[in-house]
Amino acid sequence: MGKTLTEKILERASGRSVSPRDVVEVAVDIVAFHDLTGYHVIEVLEKLGETRIHNLDSLVIAFDHLVPPPDVRSAEIQQNIRLFAKRYNIKNFHDAGFGILHQVLIEKYVLPGQVVMAADSHTTTSGALGAFAQGLGASDIAAIVLTGKTWLTVPQPFKIRLVGSPREWITGKEVALEILRVFKSDYFNGMSIEVFVDNPNSFPMDYRVTVANMGIEMNADTLMFIPDSVTVDYIRSERGFEPKIVTPDPDAKYVDEYTIELDKVDFLVSAPHSVDNVKSVRDVWGTEVDYVFIGSCTNGRLSDFEIAAKIMKGKKAKTRCIAIPASWNVFRKALNLGYIQTLVEAGCIVTYGTCGPCIGGHFGIAAPNEVVLSTSNRNFVGRMGSPQAKIYLSGPAIAAAAAVSGKIVEPGDVM
Amino acid sequence: MGKTLTEKILERASGRSVSPRDVVEVAVDIVAFHDLTGYHVIEVLEKLGETRIHNLDSLVIAFDHLVPPPDVRSAEIQQNIRLFAKRYNIKNFHDAGFGILHQVLIEKYVLPGQVVMAADSHTTTSGALGAFAQGLGASDIAAIVLTGKTWLTVPQPFKIRLVGSPREWITGKEVALEILRVFKSDYFNGMSIEVFVDNPNSFPMDYRVTVANMGIEMNADTLMFIPDSVTVDYIRSERGFEPKIVTPDPDAKYVDEYTIELDKVDFLVSAPHSVDNVKSVRDVWGTEVDYVFIGSCTNGRLSDFEIAAKIMKGKKAKTRCIAIPASWNVFRKALNLGYIQTLVEAGCIVTYGTCGPCIGGHFGIAAPNEVVLSTSNRNFVGRMGSPQAKIYLSGPAIAAAAAVSGKIVEPGDVM
Repeated sequence: MGKTLTEKILERASGRSVSPRDVVEVAVDIVAFHDLTGYHVIEVLEKLGETRIHNLDSLVIAFDHLVPPPDVRSAEIQQNIRLFAKRYNIKNFHDAGFGILHQVLIEKYVLPGQVVMAADSHTTTSGALGAFAQGLGASDIAAIVLTGKTWLTVPQPFKIRLVGSPREWITGKEVALEILRVFKSDYFNGMSIEVFVDNPNSFPMDYRVTVANMGIEMNADTLMFIPDSVTVDYIRSERGFEPKIVTPDPDAKYVDEYTIELDKVDFLVSAPHSVDNVKSVRDVWGTEVDYVFIGSCTNGRLSDFEIAAKIMKGKKAKTRCIAIPASWNVFRKALNLGYIQTLVEAGCIVTYGTCGPCIGGHFGIAAPNEVVLSTSNRNFVGRMGSPQAKIYLSGPAIAAAAAVSGKIVEPGDVM
Repeated sequence: MGKTLTEKILERASGRSVSPRDVVEVAVDIVAFHDLTGYHVIEVLEKLGETRIHNLDSLVIAFDHLVPPPDVRSAEIQQNIRLFAKRYNIKNFHDAGFGILHQVLIEKYVLPGQVVMAADSHTTTSGALGAFAQGLGASDIAAIVLTGKTWLTVPQPFKIRLVGSPREWITGKEVALEILRVFKSDYFNGMSIEVFVDNPNSFPMDYRVTVANMGIEMNADTLMFIPDSVTVDYIRSERGFEPKIVTPDPDAKYVDEYTIELDKVDFLVSAPHSVDNVKSVRDVWGTEVDYVFIGSCTNGRLSDFEIAAKIMKGKKAKTRCIAIPASWNVFRKALNLGYIQTLVEAGCIVTYGTCGPCIGGHFGIAAPNEVVLSTSNRNFVGRMGSPQAKIYLSGPAIAAAAAVSGKIVEPGDVM
């Protein structure tokens, strides 16, 4: 019988044949953490008295959650991890200002078919490249740093097929919200979602990264896009070489499958206070917005700022607006293409490479009763600051349209 | 007998003849506050139960200290002031992202000969345009908001003459530090410093703003540049009209005077932990630096980023580096001239219009034992974060040279 991508990756990584629900030990290709979880990872390593890092090449650290540090405690935490990185000569160490960990992994490290484990729930992001990627707690990550291995339960594979092409301004975020609208946020527990794109070019890498990022919001163990020409082209253009790809067998068996007709995906938002409280923009049309955030590991890529810039071009923001590309790399490209200039002309505050507002960490905290429209990934009570704030989640087009109109509307309403 | 600029301004504002040490009541032309002091100003107004604002046109509010808000408390404070501004229809209200208050006052509001009172010690900044500008506490500012008046002791005028032209890379900051080197930080108590520039074009407006900003570090009541062609040109180009100027009489009497030969001003830094612990760069040459900050109301203007970009062009930062233009206006200009692009290519984290790191507020807090080189205005223990950090203050050239070399050096050492 044919094998799914999940099975192929985990068979290679475990050195044995696997079936869903098997508990297996796997070799981890990439292990990673950021400043906030890194603190705990290093604490565990120190408690163990261990100093032997299994594989320096496989370890990636990027500071993103509280950068630049908003208080002495986070500055100290970063200082300690910086010293750790220096002591162990960790070459894949990225200090504040390089990028959000998940974006850095996509840009520089992850390859199709790899097993990626990082101390952050949105590690599923790397599934965009066809890697089996999961978030784990700091203790598990510390163990992987030392042994190169971890154990997991092989998830049940679920197939999602994307057919056709999305309408203008519809992106990965709307597709992720469409999945959450249909399946809610607990359906995929214990499953891996494998996404097949019928027409690869209809769904570019940036969109895939957003959908994979939201895999954890669907409660999936992982969400992987089946590698195709878009995957190969992305890695060739970002890293200068052609990757080998792993794909499922044509007769691989899935527990179930679901097809999304991309041209029928609507403008969607997650209304307060749950990511799966998905509504059509028409159903919340005209809701007044105080503050718009465009960025995060979910929607901090070039196409997000391209869309925002197209919609905001020549207009002034009517809400406060903060725009944060996910990495130095994205910010540079957005600068060179004039997107940052357009957003700044519109009055957006810009910086790059920080999770800041998304996690309610700093650099744009919501006040009580404020209505926030954010391109990030979670809108539970208190996520972005005050527990009395109301957070709507959307893609970049709805966010940009809200910034220039002060309301939740469709892009066509402001063009 | 001829009159000083101090006397001319205070005579007009008080409607009587004045002499040094007189206590006079003056009409205030511009009264201003920011988010952090605004909280207290509004608290006082509310306690007084007063709702009548003396002159809406004269009141300026700009959010700068904790923007974008790093925590719920600062978000709430800003929300309250925003509501206050809306309730009283305050047209000169600038939300997060417009600029640091002192920069906004210079760009849009202050005119030569005015009396400017704001709830922030660095209000002396407006003296760059030849205004009598002082920082006051929140209660005094609240009283001015209601009455349009305040009382003050007429300071004793001290004359500083700038002759010749500064050497390459020497700017207003080095001149401010030179004054602090010679006079220390308590000499000018009870005095107003009036600065005469022999050759106006040798000392552009940006440099003057830096020196006036540091007037409070010299403990002067105010520091004013005698308006000249540079003053007129600045207001004409920024605001589109030609201002009337007030200048002292040629035979005005000063308590003392001091001449600075600009071509002899050296590369200087304030070493830890006092702004008047001024040393030649040669005396601290090679000191290793962990973190560089270019920005603040002291050095967040276009010429600061022009200098930083010239020095960092084509190089990579060896320290963490944060670069924050003081306003939206400066950031846009720096973007259009390519300075931001150069700094980003070098690896600097950029944003705009926040005091953040300078006040140890957020967005770049120093960790214990870190050595910081900052273009800001204060380096006392704990100012930028940890009390164990060591802060050096410098102009933009020394800061940029430190960013690309990792050490305190002269610009010529890295070019």
